[in-house]
Amino acid sequence: MEKKKIAIGVDLGGTNTVFGFVDREGNILGEGKLKTCEYDEIEVFVAALYEKIQVTGQKIGNGIEVVGYGIGAPMGNINKGTIEHAADLPWKGIVPLADLFNRHTDLPVIVTNDANAAAVGEMIYGGAKGMKNFVVITLGTGLGSGFVIDGKLVYGHDGFAGEIGHTAIRPGASNRDCGCGRKGCLETYVSATGLKRSLLKIMADSIQPSELRKYSFDELDSKIIYDAAKKGDYIANRAFTHTGRMLGFKLADVVAHTNPEAIFLFGGLANAEDLIFEPAKEYMEENLLHIYKGKVKLLKSELTTKNAAVLGASSLIWSIEESNS
Amino acid sequence: MEKKKIAIGVDLGGTNTVFGFVDREGNILGEGKLKTCEYDEIEVFVAALYEKIQVTGQKIGNGIEVVGYGIGAPMGNINKGTIEHAADLPWKGIVPLADLFNRHTDLPVIVTNDANAAAVGEMIYGGAKGMKNFVVITLGTGLGSGFVIDGKLVYGHDGFAGEIGHTAIRPGASNRDCGCGRKGCLETYVSATGLKRSLLKIMADSIQPSELRKYSFDELDSKIIYDAAKKGDYIANRAFTHTGRMLGFKLADVVAHTNPEAIFLFGGLANAEDLIFEPAKEYMEENLLHIYKGKVKLLKSELTTKNAAVLGASSLIWSIEESNS
Repeated sequence: MEKKKIAIGVDLGGTNTVFGFVDREGNILGEGKLKTCEYDEIEVFVAALYEKIQVTGQKIGNGIEVVGYGIGAPMGNINKGTIEHAADLPWKGIVPLADLFNRHTDLPVIVTNDANAAAVGEMIYGGAKGMKNFVVITLGTGLGSGFVIDGKLVYGHDGFAGEIGHTAIRPGASNRDCGCGRKGCLETYVSATGLKRSLLKIMADSIQPSELRKYSFDELDSKIIYDAAKKGDYIANRAFTHTGRMLGFKLADVVAHTNPEAIFLFGGLANAEDLIFEPAKEYMEENLLHIYKGKVKLLKSELTTKNAAVLGASSLIWSIEESNS
Repeated sequence: MEKKKIAIGVDLGGTNTVFGFVDREGNILGEGKLKTCEYDEIEVFVAALYEKIQVTGQKIGNGIEVVGYGIGAPMGNINKGTIEHAADLPWKGIVPLADLFNRHTDLPVIVTNDANAAAVGEMIYGGAKGMKNFVVITLGTGLGSGFVIDGKLVYGHDGFAGEIGHTAIRPGASNRDCGCGRKGCLETYVSATGLKRSLLKIMADSIQPSELRKYSFDELDSKIIYDAAKKGDYIANRAFTHTGRMLGFKLADVVAHTNPEAIFLFGGLANAEDLIFEPAKEYMEENLLHIYKGKVKLLKSELTTKNAAVLGASSLIWSIEESNS
């Protein structure tokens, strides 16, 4: 019997690394997880990840044939197979991830930006099926973006296209430090952390009562703020509105650059639904040139938060499989 | 003897419309000009332009064969062959330019954004030869932009990609009215008009002497401000610095979207050389994420201001000629 072809999709994040055994239809036959932050040495991390994948594969049984490894990672560079100066990972400088992986296997290893992986996943398995021009914005600890134009992911000249999380909100100094070493980047406003930061500033300015006043910054998270907002908390609602408006403001720029059919929001904050979509949509429209108004869809990703990056990363392998066959 | 194939390139602007008879090598065999602003009715304009082109062709002689018409125009839409709601043209609403042209000829008529035409011209005849990922910014009365990714012009879903002249400098109200009906668009700062507007504001705030204080707003132009700046005029220099910085600020966004190899500046303001390039480059670098720093070239267009849009528009015809042959 012919073995089922499987691509390994890896979502390499600052806290956890998740992987899945994915078939061509997007079914996940097995999964596993590793604590990224516990590995100071990249070589040890890669060896551990590779072994964990093999062990998981043995549990699935021998009806499968792994054909390659697709890895989505912050600052992942598809041209060089590297991770370059990622602020949220334990390994500094330029990490030759694909080369390190290929010490263990001769199969193809493709590394790309995690938001690019999510965009490919959306195109193959999600709401962007059949779309040729769209953008995926990932809202997690930070803000990532992946651009698809004419049905192809945009990598740019150096492999780093789509880092709008690090565009500035306004010219000149802003007070918000960014993990990248600068100030006032979009992701300091629009991300799980950005929401918390805005909440604190609004809380400081306002005298409205709020149940959130009893939480420390460390204790707060998007879910707590979301629940408070749903119960009518004024400060929580203001924080969501501000976050959504800053997002909408910059989405108008995205439209003026590449004129997409749709923009998908993916990740934790996207689950806040109207609380984030309404102000984002309103402010995007307000900032759009007339020729774009009412034409660009702002949609929630159709991939579950859990598996999208894994699916997207695995699909990188199918794309080279197809061009080889 | 086989006739020389010629594409007509048309640069349709708010004041003048210029056309050229262009061969495949980019030589211009004949040229002509029409005052756009004197034609209230688009049908009359098209008839006059078409006749003027025929008359010019007869002067060149019968050694040539025209194979098509490429037209660059503000808000030109390649998908539909239309001009849509162009603020600076005499015809309002949606103008079916290609259809009107095809009442006179059965040859292909391609309409696109003037900045897109300039980008194609730069790629075929200018400094972007051999580049796959670059951007052209046209600095005239307004600010246009054309994006090339993977060697192809980006049109986007509705054919309107590349309108960064109409992205806002900052969230919320700005005082500068834009021709598009909104406020604070990039082109209200970075364009020949934007330079004048900044100059007036700086003049109002400053008590420095300046020979420019004797000019009215209507009398002022980029050349007068340039000459004053070169002679050391404080206010003129401040106006150029401010214009360059606002440009650099938004070019950092361009890089974070599409990671180009180079950005070309084209048009009147680009001729101000260091006065615009130095502050633009400095402020772009200051606003770039580390992975991009020092990697993106900011270059002057290698096409002369006079002919670039005509060359670019004509080259649209060669691109369909090639795909047909």
